[in-house]
Amino acid sequence: MAEPKEPTAALFGIKPRTGRLMLIQPRTLKGFRDYPPALMIPREGLLEKARRTFRSYGFAPIDTPALEYAEILTGKGGDESDKQLYRFKDHGDRDVALRFDLTVPFARFAAENIGQLGTPFKRYAMGPVWRGENTQRGRYREFWQCDFDTIGTTSNASDIEIVLVIHDLMRSLGLERFRIHVNNRMVLNGLLEEIGLAGKTTDALRALDKLAKVGRDGVLAELGEKGVAAEAGNKLLDLAQVQGTNDEILAHLERDFGGNAKTAEGIRRLRELLGVVRTAGIDDARLRLDVAIARGLDYYTGTIYETFLDDLPTIGSVCSGGRYDNLAGLYTKQQLPGVGASLGLDRLIAALEELKMLPNVATPAPVLMVQFQAEYLGRYQAMARTLRAEGIGVEVYPEPKKIGAQLQYAEKRGFRLALIAGAEEFEKGVWKLKNLAAREEKTVAAGEVADAIRPALAGG
Amino acid sequence: MAEPKEPTAALFGIKPRTGRLMLIQPRTLKGFRDYPPALMIPREGLLEKARRTFRSYGFAPIDTPALEYAEILTGKGGDESDKQLYRFKDHGDRDVALRFDLTVPFARFAAENIGQLGTPFKRYAMGPVWRGENTQRGRYREFWQCDFDTIGTTSNASDIEIVLVIHDLMRSLGLERFRIHVNNRMVLNGLLEEIGLAGKTTDALRALDKLAKVGRDGVLAELGEKGVAAEAGNKLLDLAQVQGTNDEILAHLERDFGGNAKTAEGIRRLRELLGVVRTAGIDDARLRLDVAIARGLDYYTGTIYETFLDDLPTIGSVCSGGRYDNLAGLYTKQQLPGVGASLGLDRLIAALEELKMLPNVATPAPVLMVQFQAEYLGRYQAMARTLRAEGIGVEVYPEPKKIGAQLQYAEKRGFRLALIAGAEEFEKGVWKLKNLAAREEKTVAAGEVADAIRPALAGG
Repeated sequence: MAEPKEPTAALFGIKPRTGRLMLIQPRTLKGFRDYPPALMIPREGLLEKARRTFRSYGFAPIDTPALEYAEILTGKGGDESDKQLYRFKDHGDRDVALRFDLTVPFARFAAENIGQLGTPFKRYAMGPVWRGENTQRGRYREFWQCDFDTIGTTSNASDIEIVLVIHDLMRSLGLERFRIHVNNRMVLNGLLEEIGLAGKTTDALRALDKLAKVGRDGVLAELGEKGVAAEAGNKLLDLAQVQGTNDEILAHLERDFGGNAKTAEGIRRLRELLGVVRTAGIDDARLRLDVAIARGLDYYTGTIYETFLDDLPTIGSVCSGGRYDNLAGLYTKQQLPGVGASLGLDRLIAALEELKMLPNVATPAPVLMVQFQAEYLGRYQAMARTLRAEGIGVEVYPEPKKIGAQLQYAEKRGFRLALIAGAEEFEKGVWKLKNLAAREEKTVAAGEVADAIRPALAGG
Repeated sequence: MAEPKEPTAALFGIKPRTGRLMLIQPRTLKGFRDYPPALMIPREGLLEKARRTFRSYGFAPIDTPALEYAEILTGKGGDESDKQLYRFKDHGDRDVALRFDLTVPFARFAAENIGQLGTPFKRYAMGPVWRGENTQRGRYREFWQCDFDTIGTTSNASDIEIVLVIHDLMRSLGLERFRIHVNNRMVLNGLLEEIGLAGKTTDALRALDKLAKVGRDGVLAELGEKGVAAEAGNKLLDLAQVQGTNDEILAHLERDFGGNAKTAEGIRRLRELLGVVRTAGIDDARLRLDVAIARGLDYYTGTIYETFLDDLPTIGSVCSGGRYDNLAGLYTKQQLPGVGASLGLDRLIAALEELKMLPNVATPAPVLMVQFQAEYLGRYQAMARTLRAEGIGVEVYPEPKKIGAQLQYAEKRGFRLALIAGAEEFEKGVWKLKNLAAREEKTVAAGEVADAIRPALAGG
């Protein structure tokens, strides 16, 4: 900052420092980061669009504390998750920890409150979580999660709705080229039961994972070691390789894999999902049946979802989730089945950045009101208030500096328009409106400033 | 939750539990609380209105980590504040702590980043802070703060703008009967210098505080003990008792108290503030010059603000702040003067609740789409999507339960309208629209549902 030039500077004690003070080094912890406006404006924009979408479907916001009793959080995500917990003793010598996700606190919340809230219960939650992870992988130790779920019902209507929410969410972010991959774990799980591999999902998937590397025979050999007969192993391989259009896949599944109640129900649910999504008016190309996705090896038991961007397939799924049998079994005897998904916030922001869909601005207001002559501050703020009431953000520059300096500030921050008026303009009842990118200036009657600004902001 | 009645329940493993499982008691820490939808919907609404107002003035969002090096946070708010810190060793044996406010992290942030960001810099920040306070006072150990500041300038234009922001913020919340009290500490501080009490603000204010109890003579006696002559003491008492309309107070101050450069500048700034606020079109009654407010004994050095609700004067100020000489002196030699204020979020929510200005709802969507016949789920979602595209939130009930049960759910959650259609309605191309509060039902053509809903939602 330049030394303030106001005559009152001395009154505010502004004077060169002697530097004898012991300064504390201003720094953030390893794995943590600040969000300056250029990072925070896109994050807020994304959260706001997500909130609006969730609400429009009747998902209600909830929040839970950052700190929980450690016993609530431990043992939920495996050993690694426990090691990453920020865990300590509080003032009352309680064993406490910072939440590492939003699902475990939601389970605790549901166990405690569902009696009063009633079911079905639809909620979304957004907030920071903390994991003392190895930062070498480029991960942060504090990051945001953004979850939405419907609990207390096994109805397929809720599973189907998740697809609609993801669809609307992507489009609200301006994304058109995306694909929601859908599968139903009941098909695989039913088949595994049928071939005597019930509960051995991990073994089966691990063997199937090697398909590309070792071929069908290699997989069959590995399955054979687990006691799976060749016929059963072949059926499992057939399922893993079902491909085609959505309708072809459904027909194929129904013909070859609907042999028991569980697989049949899984297939029925997928067919219903496709039908309802079509009737609801969603482009068929947006949805892809994909028997290869099997996320959350044990947790998910029904429909599962992943969302990929056509232009950035390598970044992975930006919105994923699925149906689970019981949310809160560790805290209550009441069974709470549910279905939900989680938005990959950081991944989405990175994607939008790479697709050049994020405005590179450090100001949430598009218009800078130049403070040309200090004595007109009231009139500058009066016009600014008129524009704000019309939904146009206006920042009034706080000092009557040279116009050049104020416009430089405007360009650096990413303002798009500047308004300028002095004695001459006020006498004529006009304002100068400057388009900063186009470097154009026009003179506008005072009553028409908002109308002149709107098209300039719409175009870009 | 009732046992799910779907025929597929068994497939999802829904069965009575034996209860042999050791359950973990679901509970929150003392001093912490969950926000269910009925609490969270108002909080989100308030934050959203605040965000919109801040942005419309060009304040940009920033965020800083919840955890900081303990040395950044200690010694900033006095001994009590240090004792309340949630402080512990992290995985790397670093001495870390959870932030107890948003000001200290902002100071650290500014010291680290202001060179790159440039000045003036306007930011807002919203987020949870943690204090291990005694909960007997009805305080929570986790609560939200909501701050906005302009730093890097001493210009009075920034001080004045804070008043405009508070004004717009209150009105955006639907509040009309409020008063922003404004003072300038330069007047008191200048006078204290004049009478030889420079730096002894606390002593002087403590003596003045007893005015009502001990009268002028009592205060003069106490000031006398501190070596203040009767004449000087009388002048201080006169200042503390200046009253009248805003214009009367200004005239009185200018006549009797503008004797040195500091008091004169303070008075000039107050006069300019009043003038600009008027020219900007704000009702004069909204602003009150109040020489009695002196918040933040040492921190604030210029304009100060408090905001009171006419109908709830006892709850205290709902938005307060002021001008300070230097934000980040502990971390950098660069002097960063600034001005800002903080929204009392919990206090405001309590006030709006007491004024019955909060809708008592647990759903963010006003319309429930009844699932009357499961086979029409696609058509229900199609109509819901049409309405959502028009900005009307619609929740589709996930199960084809009896209409009575679905309407009961709707009333319990606070839905205002319900839409119902079955084979008969689809044949005729109509929908039944039920107004839940008025217990009225009408039949609407499919193409006119949005138009029929809008007035029903506007009226209430």
